[in-house]
Amino acid sequence: MDRKEFRDLASPQDAREAIDSLSLEGGVERASLEDARGRVLAARLDAELDVPGFDRASLDGYALRARDTFGADEADPARLEVVGEVHAGEDPDIDLADGEAVEISTGAVMPSGADAMVPVERTDTDELAGRADVLIRTSVAPGDNVMFAGADVAAGERALGPGTRITPRDVGLLSALGIDEIPVRAPPTVGIVSTGDELVRPGEEVDSARGEIYDVNSYTVAAGVEDAGGEAVLYPHAGDDREEMERVLREAARECDLVLSSGSTSASAVDVIYDVIEEGGELLLHGVAVKPGKPMLVGRLEDSAYVGLPGYPVSAMMIFRTFVAPAIREAAGLPEPEAATLEGEMAVQERYGEGRMRLMPVGVVTDGDGDTLVYPVDKGSGATTSLAEADGVVEVDPGTDYLEAGEPVTVSLFSPDVRPPTLLGVGEDDPTLNRLLDRLENPRYLSEGTEPGFRRLREGVPDIAVVAGPADRDIDAAVLGDWSREWGLVVEAGNPREIEGLADLLDRDVRFVNRTTDSGLRTSLDRALEDVAEGRGSNIREVTDAIDGYGLGLRAHESPPRKVAAREADAALGLAETAERLDLEFVSLGQQRVRVLANPDRVEKAGVRELEGVLERHLE
Amino acid sequence: MDRKEFRDLASPQDAREAIDSLSLEGGVERASLEDARGRVLAARLDAELDVPGFDRASLDGYALRARDTFGADEADPARLEVVGEVHAGEDPDIDLADGEAVEISTGAVMPSGADAMVPVERTDTDELAGRADVLIRTSVAPGDNVMFAGADVAAGERALGPGTRITPRDVGLLSALGIDEIPVRAPPTVGIVSTGDELVRPGEEVDSARGEIYDVNSYTVAAGVEDAGGEAVLYPHAGDDREEMERVLREAARECDLVLSSGSTSASAVDVIYDVIEEGGELLLHGVAVKPGKPMLVGRLEDSAYVGLPGYPVSAMMIFRTFVAPAIREAAGLPEPEAATLEGEMAVQERYGEGRMRLMPVGVVTDGDGDTLVYPVDKGSGATTSLAEADGVVEVDPGTDYLEAGEPVTVSLFSPDVRPPTLLGVGEDDPTLNRLLDRLENPRYLSEGTEPGFRRLREGVPDIAVVAGPADRDIDAAVLGDWSREWGLVVEAGNPREIEGLADLLDRDVRFVNRTTDSGLRTSLDRALEDVAEGRGSNIREVTDAIDGYGLGLRAHESPPRKVAAREADAALGLAETAERLDLEFVSLGQQRVRVLANPDRVEKAGVRELEGVLERHLE
Repeated sequence: MDRKEFRDLASPQDAREAIDSLSLEGGVERASLEDARGRVLAARLDAELDVPGFDRASLDGYALRARDTFGADEADPARLEVVGEVHAGEDPDIDLADGEAVEISTGAVMPSGADAMVPVERTDTDELAGRADVLIRTSVAPGDNVMFAGADVAAGERALGPGTRITPRDVGLLSALGIDEIPVRAPPTVGIVSTGDELVRPGEEVDSARGEIYDVNSYTVAAGVEDAGGEAVLYPHAGDDREEMERVLREAARECDLVLSSGSTSASAVDVIYDVIEEGGELLLHGVAVKPGKPMLVGRLEDSAYVGLPGYPVSAMMIFRTFVAPAIREAAGLPEPEAATLEGEMAVQERYGEGRMRLMPVGVVTDGDGDTLVYPVDKGSGATTSLAEADGVVEVDPGTDYLEAGEPVTVSLFSPDVRPPTLLGVGEDDPTLNRLLDRLENPRYLSEGTEPGFRRLREGVPDIAVVAGPADRDIDAAVLGDWSREWGLVVEAGNPREIEGLADLLDRDVRFVNRTTDSGLRTSLDRALEDVAEGRGSNIREVTDAIDGYGLGLRAHESPPRKVAAREADAALGLAETAERLDLEFVSLGQQRVRVLANPDRVEKAGVRELEGVLERHLE
Repeated sequence: MDRKEFRDLASPQDAREAIDSLSLEGGVERASLEDARGRVLAARLDAELDVPGFDRASLDGYALRARDTFGADEADPARLEVVGEVHAGEDPDIDLADGEAVEISTGAVMPSGADAMVPVERTDTDELAGRADVLIRTSVAPGDNVMFAGADVAAGERALGPGTRITPRDVGLLSALGIDEIPVRAPPTVGIVSTGDELVRPGEEVDSARGEIYDVNSYTVAAGVEDAGGEAVLYPHAGDDREEMERVLREAARECDLVLSSGSTSASAVDVIYDVIEEGGELLLHGVAVKPGKPMLVGRLEDSAYVGLPGYPVSAMMIFRTFVAPAIREAAGLPEPEAATLEGEMAVQERYGEGRMRLMPVGVVTDGDGDTLVYPVDKGSGATTSLAEADGVVEVDPGTDYLEAGEPVTVSLFSPDVRPPTLLGVGEDDPTLNRLLDRLENPRYLSEGTEPGFRRLREGVPDIAVVAGPADRDIDAAVLGDWSREWGLVVEAGNPREIEGLADLLDRDVRFVNRTTDSGLRTSLDRALEDVAEGRGSNIREVTDAIDGYGLGLRAHESPPRKVAAREADAALGLAETAERLDLEFVSLGQQRVRVLANPDRVEKAGVRELEGVLERHLE
């Protein structure tokens, strides 16, 4: 296996500087007023006209000469002759003389000769023989209740500066100035090239036997690009073919301001990209001392900037958000998001010591005192989805060997609108629980099983644990609620193999699928098998060895029955409810309790109380 | 004038409840994975498959049976026969026996019979006669370096809950699950109807003599709707015609979840809308005790919700953001923006006492200690653009008569990404200054004139004041920089009226346009006119009375010359630079200094230092 080694890893600072040295700017384009919101103004806009464009009545009432009202009051009104009326949108076409008034609507043009107005509430009309008069019961000064032309914005005035990110209020200013199109910064276009023969686009069929997987990076990175203010362009899959990869990379480079490739995990693909960049551009940096994300490339290809992201989705996103997103925001003219950090303390100890800066994805949870606890989120380097359960990142210094529980850390949130969950739960996977969770505002539930539920509740991380099976564990917790579920063997519809119970798994050629040892279902099964062993005068090891598939434990409650539905197994450990949902047959082995246990310090927490209410209302 | 009176104003709380009682929900629609970011999931999504879909090698290396490596180390490696290789995207099609290994790539399917893998770094290849061997220099346990099927997400597991706002990380999870389309909440559609004969759409010609103005509310409210997660639909202008208004309102009501009208300022239009709602729906509320914004309607029309906004743009937006935007966000499934408040203290005293809750638009500025000062932004009720200079709103209790300077207040920012200006300046309008401001990051400059500049700097509100004209004022300030500008009379190109100086304004029939008394230019003009008066043995009043147009003062430095360019005047007070820019002729009357004065407590503030640097670099 010949592959590039990453012997001299660049520092994170060098990586930032390398990316900053590239030009990602997308130029200038025109945006219509309807599409202006959120865009970044590319040049200063000065007012080309006055707002208002004329001297304007501020109220409904009478336009007049202020001096005609001097001395007037409630008791001794001034009497003026009404010589006309003017409404909004009309040319007044009247020249007011002394002793005259004009009825005027809010927003109408002040007639020539008038220098003030009196609101209708301070007047009375009065008919004299042959003429309509108005009695003015207050005195006003010149300019009173009139907004002069240009009082709001004057022609020639600086209206909006370059770099302004257009808010609805700025849209108002533009509208008032009659501007229906503005010059804005074009978002940097970011071409996304994914390589790897094993990648399949979501929506298509994936062949797991051939090791095919869905292409996670393309869509995730594209969403990240758009989040950062760029315009993502997805290029067709390049596979692992060298010529095709080179063709797609160069096409993207010609058409975009930045090209992001996310590596095929195969070493040869890395070599191809390496060669293409060296031939058609310049490689500035290869490898950076961060974890995850070591294999990062920075360079130029044709006239475009180029960044090569790692192949693993979590690594790719961590590198993207740390190094690439800030550069896209900068090029788009968007400010770095503020207020996107949280101060918290580590909920558990975390060991580390690789000499590279670590970008540690973390979740956060509020404890009973309202303080923020921070826990690492890590399903291993191959995990594609763990970031969906994380709130942000803690940057751990290369010199740090471990973070103690209770140690203060700063969490950089994935975005300013990340909302830490209102409730954090860990424990058994259960269909009733899933329905209850749907009724909560913003819960996070890690269905790791009953054992991890107990363990993590004891560590003080989650608000609640959901545990299933025998209730013989000693733990300091408040029981918020419980329900029971029927468990047993899920078998094919019609039960063609005529499976009646556990004995059939041992004595006949039945392909079985189990749950992981962490699950409460598995505990109940193992207890039942112990009884079987005892009844036969055998031991548990002999019994389990006799079951084909006993060692294959799946993680979620529906996974084993799905193997039966797919005819990959004859019997699966599962729930009566699941059998019904999947139109399968069920062989009952018993009932088990599912209990919701709360951390005693958190029973007053809003999310826990919300769950308690939901439990009360929705469990019989 | 017959009009509806707002005698029984509803409380703000009643108004909120009235709007909450309406249903704005937009239903459910499908969004493709590319368009999923930011959308709100309408239903729970469970995993339909395992991620990964197969047992997967986590590294490049060799797949093998763990027990074949037991006891192996650097010094005493285990020797295994390499019986094949498997790359990512390939079906392994190998059944591994004891003593055998398979070369495997990261992400490839583990071959049948193998239960662990060893990374290539811990191995060496070795050729024996006739067969390729690998030396394994470490021992591994079953499962080492293998990610089992479903370890990341297991089929049947709860993946995303209803109400999840899709982040790029969730896009990653959806991609991994092969999901290319999801059910999302449709944004509530909001029809926007503007009425009023005087309104003209931006981009078209406005006839100021007829009192026409640009339609500000339609686009501003539309931008606000989109900001809140709704979909805005602009309906054609209804004018003031009753039948047309009714037709448009009913069409909008049939097509949208919510109709917003923003009133014509004419009283008759309010009456028409009132009638249409009462006939075709139900009026729940008419008038609310807030300022600005009293004339607000809430009701139903056909099957749609209806809210009538005030006609004045500032009032319309204040009512929109306070009462309507939260309801749209709720219907769109978006959370209320957090962290969108600032604590500050009033920079100046503000009197108030109308018995209605006041929604006071404010700007904020950081003082020398980093504390937030809050100042009211108000250009009068007819102003359309003042919100563009505001950062947020302070809600003032109806019982409050005045806010003292220094009193603590809470500013509710217009949005969480509002960034208070880095520099706040007040003072003279000047073209050189405008260019300097363009070089700053995020400045705010209120070109109110030299007099307000001095006054507000003395009050301690802005960071800097820019003052022009005679330097005989006593103020405690640091001079950051200064430049000079040539001022005089701007006249028509070719100077057809042969204007030579101020005497021509007095002695001949010349239409002149002045600047406002607040400006430094005006001060210099008045000093020069005093000299003229003295030279003639006259007084200043006689001199100014003799000038046609002396009393008409315009607010911005370019406004008077623009009147000359438009042939509405013969001569204007202005700058040499402006004459050149507008291709007009210039009659010089002198030079004046423009000085940038800083609040002495703020000279170390980042924005002030940035300006100082810009002044040093860009002024000769």
